[in-house]
Amino acid sequence: MSIVTLTTDFQRTDYYIGAVKGAIYTQCPDANIVDITHEVPQYNIARAAYLVKNAYTHFPKGSIHIVSVMSEATIEFAHLVVKFDGHYFVGSDTGLFSLIFGDEAPEEIIELNVSMDSNRLSFPTKDVFTKVAAHIVKGGTISVLGRKINSVTRLIGYQPFIDQDVLRGMVVHIDSFGNAITNISDIIFNNFVKNDPFTVYYRTTSSGIKKISYLYSEVPEGEPLAIFNSANLLEIALHKGSAAALLGIQINSHIRVVVNDR
Amino acid sequence: MSIVTLTTDFQRTDYYIGAVKGAIYTQCPDANIVDITHEVPQYNIARAAYLVKNAYTHFPKGSIHIVSVMSEATIEFAHLVVKFDGHYFVGSDTGLFSLIFGDEAPEEIIELNVSMDSNRLSFPTKDVFTKVAAHIVKGGTISVLGRKINSVTRLIGYQPFIDQDVLRGMVVHIDSFGNAITNISDIIFNNFVKNDPFTVYYRTTSSGIKKISYLYSEVPEGEPLAIFNSANLLEIALHKGSAAALLGIQINSHIRVVVNDR
Amino acid sequence: MSIVTLTTDFQRTDYYIGAVKGAIYTQCPDANIVDITHEVPQYNIARAAYLVKNAYTHFPKGSIHIVSVMSEATIEFAHLVVKFDGHYFVGSDTGLFSLIFGDEAPEEIIELNVSMDSNRLSFPTKDVFTKVAAHIVKGGTISVLGRKINSVTRLIGYQPFIDQDVLRGMVVHIDSFGNAITNISDIIFNNFVKNDPFTVYYRTTSSGIKKISYLYSEVPEGEPLAIFNSANLLEIALHKGSAAALLGIQINSHIRVVVNDR
Repeated sequence: MSIVTLTTDFQRTDYYIGAVKGAIYTQCPDANIVDITHEVPQYNIARAAYLVKNAYTHFPKGSIHIVSVMSEATIEFAHLVVKFDGHYFVGSDTGLFSLIFGDEAPEEIIELNVSMDSNRLSFPTKDVFTKVAAHIVKGGTISVLGRKINSVTRLIGYQPFIDQDVLRGMVVHIDSFGNAITNISDIIFNNFVKNDPFTVYYRTTSSGIKKISYLYSEVPEGEPLAIFNSANLLEIALHKGSAAALLGIQINSHIRVVVNDR
Repeated sequence: MSIVTLTTDFQRTDYYIGAVKGAIYTQCPDANIVDITHEVPQYNIARAAYLVKNAYTHFPKGSIHIVSVMSEATIEFAHLVVKFDGHYFVGSDTGLFSLIFGDEAPEEIIELNVSMDSNRLSFPTKDVFTKVAAHIVKGGTISVLGRKINSVTRLIGYQPFIDQDVLRGMVVHIDSFGNAITNISDIIFNNFVKNDPFTVYYRTTSSGIKKISYLYSEVPEGEPLAIFNSANLLEIALHKGSAAALLGIQINSHIRVVVNDR
Repeated sequence: MSIVTLTTDFQRTDYYIGAVKGAIYTQCPDANIVDITHEVPQYNIARAAYLVKNAYTHFPKGSIHIVSVMSEATIEFAHLVVKFDGHYFVGSDTGLFSLIFGDEAPEEIIELNVSMDSNRLSFPTKDVFTKVAAHIVKGGTISVLGRKINSVTRLIGYQPFIDQDVLRGMVVHIDSFGNAITNISDIIFNNFVKNDPFTVYYRTTSSGIKKISYLYSEVPEGEPLAIFNSANLLEIALHKGSAAALLGIQINSHIRVVVNDR
């Protein structure tokens, strides 16, 4: 049973999710459809990419990931199927793919040329993407679905950088617990800090956090902590509280890491 | 694997969805349960019918669609299983079925006479509808589930009509993108307009929309457009915006189509 | 196909649900994952227990129920897998289990000793609980997953009690329809009331409800009623209305049952 995941901005109050699932099952009854989320904020490519990037790795190789945000095919934004890291990604080439893949090159990129049964062009997730998924589930190769191209549209995400001995990053996401997830990966952090004492500052005047926790419960309730999350990104959190609400951290808030003696 | 879809007003915060799914899997482990939505506004039959009507067609023939809105069996509202268009629909005869089927006659209508294991009558979706679904999944005929009747309770939906050379319809649904979906189908529209120039008015004083788009992106961002949606209904939308919020269109708003030279 | 249910406080806007499902399917592609809810209020063990307790009984014996609320392993709260009533429950020993099982003793309790692939300890639902579920789905015995212990942490729920010929209980849950569910079971109620005339008071000054309904529609629209719900708990409801909103009933509101002539 091949897995087809769905990441969309459809919300759950409409029939759109049902229509897409029905279309997939009609074409391949054996597919195993899994919702990542249908609550991507509308038109928010960066958020969709963040969610897919952190979810897909947990699925078996060969899984197919449909991403439906701004999925209408236009002259600027072609429909693509991309093979990357042994997985298949189907969506619109809005820059979404580059935010999922980062600097790594995909194994194969196909610009779709899939005929639609309908002259309604406004619902390509149902009319095009499900056909692509069904084709792959049935064992088809993606090269027959269109023409091969060499790269996806690049959208540059904010990257952390080192400026005068300060590692500067930012908050890219607040999760539903109020945890503030930064763009500072464990690799970047460790390369910078090495084994030296450090402080993570999350506000200009904060006293800072001087250690990395492995559990939220390492600190007293309501106290701030720094932890690497399951996506290996530095996260500012409160034990049993919302860092966002109580520390005033927001998306785009600056995060500084300073090595104490440098 | 037979598909059983669920359209309910249960919301997602309770155990009711879990109980219904558990009851289905206990009776037939091979069923493939698919959520259409659990966010039908409570007691809103028209909305449930709209969602089921537009979702079911995408599923394979033979699928079973449980609709749980006002599903308590009463003297007025019997429990039915209805075969229509090769699909099975299970629910309460509140008028819901007539709004799904429109003027077309179902293939078979059975008023259910299913014994319940419990003397709790308040959760028929779990105690009755899942039994009906399991019976069909296992290959049973519906005629043994009760007595055959000839028609469902009719609830007259608002229909568009022609009045003094104006095609008059209304907005029946605002989707989560703020798109305003009308009750004017492409067939009614084309029969009225033929090949003549036309204007779609969505407010008394609006300048109107003079073409049908095939893509939202055909017009500049923030501009209004008219498009037939995947359910073949005329929709007033904004490219990357909410027609409801920005044009002041609401459910029940009047929509007029005028052929310019008539 | 073994069933694995999920009851979490993850909400649906993040990638966490997707990551957990991916991890399960990667380890056992044949699992049948069913969402109970992902909308448990954060850190609310009592609510998670209420939902799991009332949902699990509808699933086939042998099903595995993952409960992820305050699931971080700490010195106080060990990770457990518990066999009870033929089902498996996986979660943190926060008192949650005792609220699910009540006074009945589980068949087997294992304190988990499962190695994690990651040094990130903050996402045990993905890194530990899915391994336990996969082990059971593949037919493994739970005794190999850790050491056997004799009891779970007990958390005493509010129990109804009899005080001077009044059966006193309270509202423990308001469902999404605004129905007020009490902690008074049908057994406790019937043992107290026997066959005598009674009145259920839901506010100090209310005139009270003098019968048990079997259907919401037994009373006129907007009128209050008392009914035993599908979990066999006394519920105060309004026919087509919200008892919570219109009668001013809240969680923890006192409910009194009086036998008229005693």
